[in-house]
Amino acid sequence: MADARPRTALESAALDSLFSSARTHNVLGGSIAPETLHALYDLVKWGPTSANQSPARFVFVTSPEAKKKLEPALSEMNRPKSMAAPVTVIIGYDLAFHEKLPYLFPHTDAKSWFEGNDALIRESAFRNGTLQGAYLILAARALGLDVGPLSGFDNAMVDELFFAGTSVKSNFLVNLGVGDDGQLFPRSPRLPFDEAARIV
Amino acid sequence: MADARPRTALESAALDSLFSSARTHNVLGGSIAPETLHALYDLVKWGPTSANQSPARFVFVTSPEAKKKLEPALSEMNRPKSMAAPVTVIIGYDLAFHEKLPYLFPHTDAKSWFEGNDALIRESAFRNGTLQGAYLILAARALGLDVGPLSGFDNAMVDELFFAGTSVKSNFLVNLGVGDDGQLFPRSPRLPFDEAARIV
Repeated sequence: MADARPRTALESAALDSLFSSARTHNVLGGSIAPETLHALYDLVKWGPTSANQSPARFVFVTSPEAKKKLEPALSEMNRPKSMAAPVTVIIGYDLAFHEKLPYLFPHTDAKSWFEGNDALIRESAFRNGTLQGAYLILAARALGLDVGPLSGFDNAMVDELFFAGTSVKSNFLVNLGVGDDGQLFPRSPRLPFDEAARIV
Repeated sequence: MADARPRTALESAALDSLFSSARTHNVLGGSIAPETLHALYDLVKWGPTSANQSPARFVFVTSPEAKKKLEPALSEMNRPKSMAAPVTVIIGYDLAFHEKLPYLFPHTDAKSWFEGNDALIRESAFRNGTLQGAYLILAARALGLDVGPLSGFDNAMVDELFFAGTSVKSNFLVNLGVGDDGQLFPRSPRLPFDEAARIV
């Protein structure tokens, strides 16, 4: 069967640094300039979401004060590594994302698809906000950073500490920095194709 | 503020093809070899999930018969483009993913964290299965393919047609192929940094 592709694939070194050789890092050091966080957002924002909903909201926790505020919400295992990482990103999603659709999706009245339908709002915000969280993980790697995503924390406490009085809810966290390869665990196995996929 | 990175960033052409210049394609043609779908899975599988849950399940719909089976579940707007694309991927998530954790996360009894906790299973499968769907979108682009993700379809009907008698639920779809740049809509705007992010 012939294979037609519009573009050539990225070089294998790039595929390695995004996927095949990239590791989740528990020990992250170094420092990250605010300009790098802006550059990161400027990649993430282009990733596709349904009807351009763009529901993700990002809090880049960098200062010692903000880190201290976050600390009690983290599971014990996730505390030292998140306190040591130069940046912890709180990935949230906005349950009022549809209010921005007249700007984000101007060619039709997409806002009306969601108004009053809380179940659809919640599912759409969670699905598309999570997609954007994954874009952030891979965009950070594309910029040469290491990442340590985690979901072991008290979501309600993070919402209260960082999103009180807003329509934003926390989803998961991503530590960013320079990983210490010497402190990686052995890599865990993945499912073979036939256990996770089929071609029909 | 100094900026330390463990690796150099990808070249700007690669960042463009993954994020900045990549577009959602409504018109996708060409053909995709089964080997390419295996290569795609072999990138996606390495993307991080919480406790290596790897809950996503992928059905690559390629044959005319399987496409016909899928067709009635699609919203009217999504039918012609999905029938014309060489591959439509059904991204699903397995609500029994924890059964595989003794293999996937062998160093502790992670299976017991989920057993009997349906709310945690559902949230974890949806979040981590969605992350893997995003990895598929970007891995396809990294392999030189164009993508058209969509969520306008009848999830219950797709579950009945493709996952009956299993613990897998459909999440969203991704069309793959060679995009027709001449049929792209003008690009929709994105939120400026200050509306979606903050540094604290």
